Amino acid sequence: MRFQLDRLHAFIVDVLVHLDVLPDHADVTAARLLEADLKGRTGHGIIRVPQYVTRIEAGGINLRPSIEKTRSTPVSCLIDGDNGLGQVVMTIATKAAIEKAKESGMSWVGTVRSNHAGAAGVYTNMAMKQDLIAIYMAVASANVMPPWGGRERLLGTNPISIGIPAGNEPGFLLDIATTVTSHGTIKVVAQRGESMPEGWVIDLEGNPITDPHKANDGFLMPIGGYKGAGLNMAIGLLAGVLNEAAFGTDVIDHRAVPDQPANTGQAIFVIRPDLFRDLDEFKTVIDRQLGDMRGAGRPGDVHIPGDGAARLEEEQRRDGISIPEMLLGQLRDLAGRFDLDDRLSV
Amino acid sequence: MRFQLDRLHAFIVDVLVHLDVLPDHADVTAARLLEADLKGRTGHGIIRVPQYVTRIEAGGINLRPSIEKTRSTPVSCLIDGDNGLGQVVMTIATKAAIEKAKESGMSWVGTVRSNHAGAAGVYTNMAMKQDLIAIYMAVASANVMPPWGGRERLLGTNPISIGIPAGNEPGFLLDIATTVTSHGTIKVVAQRGESMPEGWVIDLEGNPITDPHKANDGFLMPIGGYKGAGLNMAIGLLAGVLNEAAFGTDVIDHRAVPDQPANTGQAIFVIRPDLFRDLDEFKTVIDRQLGDMRGAGRPGDVHIPGDGAARLEEEQRRDGISIPEMLLGQLRDLAGRFDLDDRLSV
Repeated sequence: MRFQLDRLHAFIVDVLVHLDVLPDHADVTAARLLEADLKGRTGHGIIRVPQYVTRIEAGGINLRPSIEKTRSTPVSCLIDGDNGLGQVVMTIATKAAIEKAKESGMSWVGTVRSNHAGAAGVYTNMAMKQDLIAIYMAVASANVMPPWGGRERLLGTNPISIGIPAGNEPGFLLDIATTVTSHGTIKVVAQRGESMPEGWVIDLEGNPITDPHKANDGFLMPIGGYKGAGLNMAIGLLAGVLNEAAFGTDVIDHRAVPDQPANTGQAIFVIRPDLFRDLDEFKTVIDRQLGDMRGAGRPGDVHIPGDGAARLEEEQRRDGISIPEMLLGQLRDLAGRFDLDDRLSV
Repeated sequence: MRFQLDRLHAFIVDVLVHLDVLPDHADVTAARLLEADLKGRTGHGIIRVPQYVTRIEAGGINLRPSIEKTRSTPVSCLIDGDNGLGQVVMTIATKAAIEKAKESGMSWVGTVRSNHAGAAGVYTNMAMKQDLIAIYMAVASANVMPPWGGRERLLGTNPISIGIPAGNEPGFLLDIATTVTSHGTIKVVAQRGESMPEGWVIDLEGNPITDPHKANDGFLMPIGGYKGAGLNMAIGLLAGVLNEAAFGTDVIDHRAVPDQPANTGQAIFVIRPDLFRDLDEFKTVIDRQLGDMRGAGRPGDVHIPGDGAARLEEEQRRDGISIPEMLLGQLRDLAGRFDLDDRLSV
């Protein structure tokens, strides 16, 4: 069933405020979650609300965080999230990074004591909309695979997003987990009642697991074998260890231990294209290059990161965001518990 | 057969100087090539000398380049390589990036009108040795695969390297092509008379090619399907388009067209860890984290980027660099042509 963006936004805000989240924190969280849905990153969209509710009710999130900017330089700072909601912490971090990059040419802002912040591309997109290039990295909120050759889960799906502004084009927006799949995607597959393809998850003996409900019994696979495993580890060191955030054995599964602070770490790097060439010229050439790429196959065949998301966003802003039946049931249960039944009724 | 580092260095310098390369450019080029060999990146080591000789003799390299630092800010500059040797241009770029990062906290230096600069990890390693974190990206010197879903070769092996300093450990040093393999690696396989595994190269119909001599008839495969293809494209846009260097249809195959300037683009980003936490503490925690990773499997089983390279470098600095028979034949042919026979005799 489809719901208009505003209606879902109001629903999320109402649920969070009902749980004593500050109204502006609820508003930012709802905005970031639904931006993920709009761009088709459904695994990091409204589907996460029940899980956030569980963590908030278990006391795992600080609802009155004092989020502080520390170690500030003209090109950097560390945002201490004080265990506030991840979307709130990362939105503050991204705004700080954008501001510093505009002033100084580039910036790197890290977070510590943050939480799950949803879709990576949501933050790079904020910078891209202001004609800035951005790279985002995060330590994922649960360990799902061993380092390459090992047998103990010490690495998450550690995502990376790269946003590059274009002229008439929607812009290049890469948003990938460095594992073949992510728990967000597996959750979507499970809710659709489908099974996973081979190559996503293996068990301890290396055999494929295809039942999405058994994904936690196995290891996710990195992209590109040892290469992706190495990239994943680099992301963890840069977004986690550099910020004194959790990495490796220090990472807790934020769903399994909902009452514990996760000390999640993220990092965003922002750079002004006009350090290197005229901005309009740059954007024009990006348009041409992405056009050339599309021309390398039959119309619609070539996958350019961001193209699908842009089309989907336009469609969903017009026609509403599609909520699958099982998720709608969960959301309506929440609505019922919080006396918000009318929000998601037909 | 094994040769001591100094002897190979002198050989490369003599060959290049014989071709009228400036002595200091020859020295830097030899150093960067052999650093690749020392770390096991043999596809970007001395094996490239015959190809460089071909390009120099064809007039494809400017032997008296006026390499200029343009668009300089406290955090960035663009190095115009004036079609000089890639190792020389990238060494200047890396030194500039290190200097600016030390002053300003971080820096991004791009190159334009550069050439093939060899192993990515050689440059990040220069920064890592000075306790700096570095990320290097390059537009590879030939297009070997289409964008995901396309059928026209518009993307190279576009490598990325990430170097993160450690304390007692050798440091984390990722150095990967964003394709499953690279032409450097295929060249090594060919020279060993071996065949390629399936999954490296496919023909136009999607069937595997395993004869390394037929690799040019097919497409290399990206790591992780559309994810690696997207990352590859991002690297090309950031290391190429941002610098007005070649990307997509503008990339020439520097081996197939040895007399034409390649306008290769590279970029290196350098950042000081102490922007975020005390340097010694950071390095100590990196040591511990890498130790934890190694402990996730049986001794020697876990792949940590940089571990193998560090062991190999130590061994080869002591026992000499191993040169396979076929390559030795090619190098001795060069030596013969340039009256340098004694350099590689036993």
